[in-house]
Amino acid sequence: MTGANTGERKHPLDSFFAPSSIAIIGASRDPVKIPGLLLAFLRKNEFRGEIFPVNPNYPDIDGLRCYASIGAIQRPIDLAIVIIPARAVLDALQECVAAGVRHAIVISSGFAEEGGASSGMQDAIAALAKSSGMRISGPNAEGFYNAAAHVAATFSPTVDIKPDAPHLIATQRRIGIVAQSGGIGFAIYNRAKALGIALSYVISTGNEADLGAGEFFDYMVEDSATDVILLFVEGIRDTDKFLHAARRAAEIGKPVIVTKIGRSSAGGRAAASHTASMAGWSAAYDAVFAKYGFIVSNDLDEAVSIAAVLTTSPLPKGNRVAVVTVSGGGGIWGADAVSAQGLDVPELSAPVQETIRGLIPSYGSPRNPVDITAQAVHSGGLQKTVELLSRSDEVDSILVVISLSSETRMPFKIPELRPLMAAQIKPIVFYSYTLPSPFARTALAEAGVVVLSGLTHAATAIRQVARRAKFQLPEPVSDDAPVVDFLSVHLRNKALSEYDSKCLLRDAGVSVAEEVLVAARAKLDEAITRVGLPLVMKIQSREIPHKSEVDGVCVNITTRADAASAYDRLLANARHHRPDATIQGVLVCPMARKGVEMIVGTMQDATFGCLIMVGLGGVTTELFRDVVYRPAPVGDAEAVAMLQELKAWPLLDGFRGAAKADVTALAKLIAQISRLATRARDKIAEIEINPVLVHPQGQGVTIVDALVVPQSRAKQ
Amino acid sequence: MTGANTGERKHPLDSFFAPSSIAIIGASRDPVKIPGLLLAFLRKNEFRGEIFPVNPNYPDIDGLRCYASIGAIQRPIDLAIVIIPARAVLDALQECVAAGVRHAIVISSGFAEEGGASSGMQDAIAALAKSSGMRISGPNAEGFYNAAAHVAATFSPTVDIKPDAPHLIATQRRIGIVAQSGGIGFAIYNRAKALGIALSYVISTGNEADLGAGEFFDYMVEDSATDVILLFVEGIRDTDKFLHAARRAAEIGKPVIVTKIGRSSAGGRAAASHTASMAGWSAAYDAVFAKYGFIVSNDLDEAVSIAAVLTTSPLPKGNRVAVVTVSGGGGIWGADAVSAQGLDVPELSAPVQETIRGLIPSYGSPRNPVDITAQAVHSGGLQKTVELLSRSDEVDSILVVISLSSETRMPFKIPELRPLMAAQIKPIVFYSYTLPSPFARTALAEAGVVVLSGLTHAATAIRQVARRAKFQLPEPVSDDAPVVDFLSVHLRNKALSEYDSKCLLRDAGVSVAEEVLVAARAKLDEAITRVGLPLVMKIQSREIPHKSEVDGVCVNITTRADAASAYDRLLANARHHRPDATIQGVLVCPMARKGVEMIVGTMQDATFGCLIMVGLGGVTTELFRDVVYRPAPVGDAEAVAMLQELKAWPLLDGFRGAAKADVTALAKLIAQISRLATRARDKIAEIEINPVLVHPQGQGVTIVDALVVPQSRAKQ
Repeated sequence: MTGANTGERKHPLDSFFAPSSIAIIGASRDPVKIPGLLLAFLRKNEFRGEIFPVNPNYPDIDGLRCYASIGAIQRPIDLAIVIIPARAVLDALQECVAAGVRHAIVISSGFAEEGGASSGMQDAIAALAKSSGMRISGPNAEGFYNAAAHVAATFSPTVDIKPDAPHLIATQRRIGIVAQSGGIGFAIYNRAKALGIALSYVISTGNEADLGAGEFFDYMVEDSATDVILLFVEGIRDTDKFLHAARRAAEIGKPVIVTKIGRSSAGGRAAASHTASMAGWSAAYDAVFAKYGFIVSNDLDEAVSIAAVLTTSPLPKGNRVAVVTVSGGGGIWGADAVSAQGLDVPELSAPVQETIRGLIPSYGSPRNPVDITAQAVHSGGLQKTVELLSRSDEVDSILVVISLSSETRMPFKIPELRPLMAAQIKPIVFYSYTLPSPFARTALAEAGVVVLSGLTHAATAIRQVARRAKFQLPEPVSDDAPVVDFLSVHLRNKALSEYDSKCLLRDAGVSVAEEVLVAARAKLDEAITRVGLPLVMKIQSREIPHKSEVDGVCVNITTRADAASAYDRLLANARHHRPDATIQGVLVCPMARKGVEMIVGTMQDATFGCLIMVGLGGVTTELFRDVVYRPAPVGDAEAVAMLQELKAWPLLDGFRGAAKADVTALAKLIAQISRLATRARDKIAEIEINPVLVHPQGQGVTIVDALVVPQSRAKQ
Repeated sequence: MTGANTGERKHPLDSFFAPSSIAIIGASRDPVKIPGLLLAFLRKNEFRGEIFPVNPNYPDIDGLRCYASIGAIQRPIDLAIVIIPARAVLDALQECVAAGVRHAIVISSGFAEEGGASSGMQDAIAALAKSSGMRISGPNAEGFYNAAAHVAATFSPTVDIKPDAPHLIATQRRIGIVAQSGGIGFAIYNRAKALGIALSYVISTGNEADLGAGEFFDYMVEDSATDVILLFVEGIRDTDKFLHAARRAAEIGKPVIVTKIGRSSAGGRAAASHTASMAGWSAAYDAVFAKYGFIVSNDLDEAVSIAAVLTTSPLPKGNRVAVVTVSGGGGIWGADAVSAQGLDVPELSAPVQETIRGLIPSYGSPRNPVDITAQAVHSGGLQKTVELLSRSDEVDSILVVISLSSETRMPFKIPELRPLMAAQIKPIVFYSYTLPSPFARTALAEAGVVVLSGLTHAATAIRQVARRAKFQLPEPVSDDAPVVDFLSVHLRNKALSEYDSKCLLRDAGVSVAEEVLVAARAKLDEAITRVGLPLVMKIQSREIPHKSEVDGVCVNITTRADAASAYDRLLANARHHRPDATIQGVLVCPMARKGVEMIVGTMQDATFGCLIMVGLGGVTTELFRDVVYRPAPVGDAEAVAMLQELKAWPLLDGFRGAAKADVTALAKLIAQISRLATRARDKIAEIEINPVLVHPQGQGVTIVDALVVPQSRAKQ
């Protein structure tokens, strides 16, 4: 067998993806229904192993002997494809186990996605897999296609072989697709194939009773035949396997492009019912994707365009792009599109311009965008310019903007272009503003070129690969500190006040300014002496989480007399607004020095656990949604990377001549809070530090307000 | 004559776009070079008028008599297409004038785009058009294609007729394309044609020596055969005609989709040389586009997708979208994509869900997104669900997310779908996640359906048409006020201080709080008495535009003693930082009440004249670039519309329980400033009010700082 995982190592799923023998349980003579399609596609794609149709109603199907039961085959079976009514599936799988079948795919629908008793049948399948060791994909799956080994174990029409269809393969490198929707997974393949991108496998994971998306993802990460992975995710169930694979992919530098759906409220609503999966909180997914350097794309053609660049080109060394065109308008548009992605389109040096000028007519332009004009195509100017720029260290990528609609003529000579692409010096991305003709696609595929048809997608792809090139997997944060028992004393109450929360943080080693809780008016003077004027005073009650709603805060108190009257006023306000609330007292705090107002928080995600968040504080946080999340814990360097992702980053980095903020201190706080939240994840549901003021470099940060929310008792 | 403009009215360009006779000056027997292609395409597209090749070297070409000169034809000629070397063009055009030719297109290159003497030849062409009345398109043009009248006056390969290519026309309504790049203009047509969108005309405008994009745009606005206009703009030259056409299009409700290139610095750099046009300031273009309700799109497929929705469907009545799918994952993705555009995907009412439940299997979902499942396609559930939702008043648009890759099967019955599309009840947009097959495209075209292939583009198209449906052309602002002579006294100096600027604004009727300029320390007390404590004090000098850079501002001065020391300090600071600057004095101002900090400004654009701008004040303005522009003047209602476009609009509209701001007063100020800037456009280059504080409703606005920049003498 020709599995890609032969060689150095053996993977348990090798014989799933590249089986020596396949049984089709529920095989049919009807060539248009699903069981018939399965058999037809397996054979049309030239499966090289043995095929055993199983159906008691036929002696043979399509020239193959048909068996009455799986037990009747009496030969080793690597893979059973099950396509019979749902109620019969469990029995059939048990027979498979008895017959020593290694793997099964259940195509049949009518399980967890229907709910009720059907959901119970799926649980039984999961239990069978666990007890027997036979691995099961599905139910409600669309199967898989292994292009290298010619295994089409699916009824997706996208694997049908059409005699007159051109077989377009432009790339040496291959994509692997793991999709939690069969329709979309094979649609990605369908579109990638049309561009000439080579495939290793596409697998649709169905309801994931046993084998899940995480495990298939892991297979492709380890698989040497897969160079770029595309994931289509609704909701991850086998989280540990997924995270392990994500880390491995980052470590070995295998790019992952991911589409996550169920982001909107309507989408999430539908995901909750569809295939019984939970879409989860998309911010948590994005945090994980960011940590492991995944490229997130929410558009099919965009994702495939990114895959095209990754499978045809090396990663670029930087953000500088040359745009080369035969159309003045197209070149300007290309420069706009690339610039809109935050990439640079630098002017070329005088010597490079001079050389290009020698290749093009006088009405062309050797600047960047380089307009070689339609005339210079015929004289080889296009090829020579692209070659020149590919060897120049003035740009990191090249975007070629041309028209490839002709059915007979091509602006490149393939024998000249092929070595240039093969040299893999930098990304050379081809975009045709007219629809590329099959002739042009086929001819250019021979040179290793994939022609893109969307300019925004092409520019996005360049940005994404340039970004991926800079990705560094953060150092793992050691998480072996002792369990945080000292917290218990702080978490006796169901809710914590600001005072309680700050005490907890101080005990956990977080630097919080000296503040005094005054529970009796007589103690106020002493508190003022300790804290020093000017002051801020805030009402404290475990039942009043939002102090401003009860007029519970006085700022800029400059005299003792003002402090006394503020004390009385704060208590009166609290009694007026919340007569029922138990008051702890008034917190007397120093006025904080000025600084950039930020928020730091942690929360628990059902799928990925503890997350750390940082954002710009104040009204703008909510208005511009300028926040960044990561799975906790994070180290200091990763915290800095989070800050640099904020739109508000310039405010910390010396915006408009202001002093640079103490990013080191803020990063340290973020890392510290993230570790605390992770270690105390069974006790603490949320931490919110809002705001923390970030002072100029070397002057640290000030936690102005903080709230720690304990886990509800049920969870502890 | 088959011009679309026959009928009610005659337009001077009717016989340009639908000529009865065409002369090709420079016709050639070589069928692969441009002159040969021109003749070939004209004939292959079945031009119904007479064709006169002109070339002294041939007696005949391709069976047509060939003339030695234009004068030798001796017949009326509506259109001469000129494709000879640049240096011979002017003579040829003069001969055309002498022969009574009505219009000419100069295809030849080598004019303004080359600069120098070549630019002079173009000026001579422009002068000839003016003096003779013969209208001239180009030079450096790619010609036009009139689909209705079969006039292919272009060498673009996109108009070539291929015998076996399917003729796909899905839409009754037609698009017209005006492009300042021939390559891109015909690429738009190429892509629209592939989708089955019908065309009226595509014209490439070239260097626009005489006929410009504005005039062609105007033609299509007035033309009854054109329903939707696509503009591809580098830089508008005939601004008045363009603006006239833009207003007319808005008045008659003809949608305009516009792509503006040259937005980036690299793109702008290239545009400055290419076809000798200036890209201009893209914010000014966007301001004009917004005023007239243009739909801006910077991607070819996106623009064509929007055109597809506009040519197949009526405008939607609102933002509510139903997503109907056969793939669970596809439906969720569709809901996500639509939601990401800010559209609503509402849950359907119980009765509607109940009806849908009767059409689909138990594992489908009648919620929104509606997953009818692949099975319900065969039972007609897809068709019935779409029909039901099209008649329901619970949604305003329908997005159908399906797979249309099959070459033999279709999920719709055309005779059932056709009347539904023809009823034009609401937008029904079809997206295929697999690549749509030619079979499906052709079959659905018969029902009036255009199949879209990009999900983001489809969702964007729905958002854009929903937005267009709400567009209202603002009432024109009367601009007949007397010339603002009273300003002259304020504008004697080359630069104005804040004090000067505020005096000017007060004289112009703008409400500015009472402030006192103190030029001698002895006058300070009197000023404090007039203004009242607390105070703000600011240094005033016409040579110090940025007061904070000389530590020239003191805020929150609460005592007379503090004011006196502030006075001395401000003068000392100014002397220290700018010993050379002439000081007017210190401006004593009341402390402004709190309010939302905004910026209002005006500036002059080289293409479109005076613009008014409003944005959120403070550091965020620059960071989040949250500003909105319009051509000045604007009325109060248009000013409110500007404010509502700001991301920061919620801050004015009662964000997080805050009081609503006095939007009425702010809008009045914006309108007032815009009128002032327009009337004084020969005298005032810029006005910047930064910040203006917007107080709660009914409490007005406070202009804190203002700067008026006079026009340089040269311009007055």
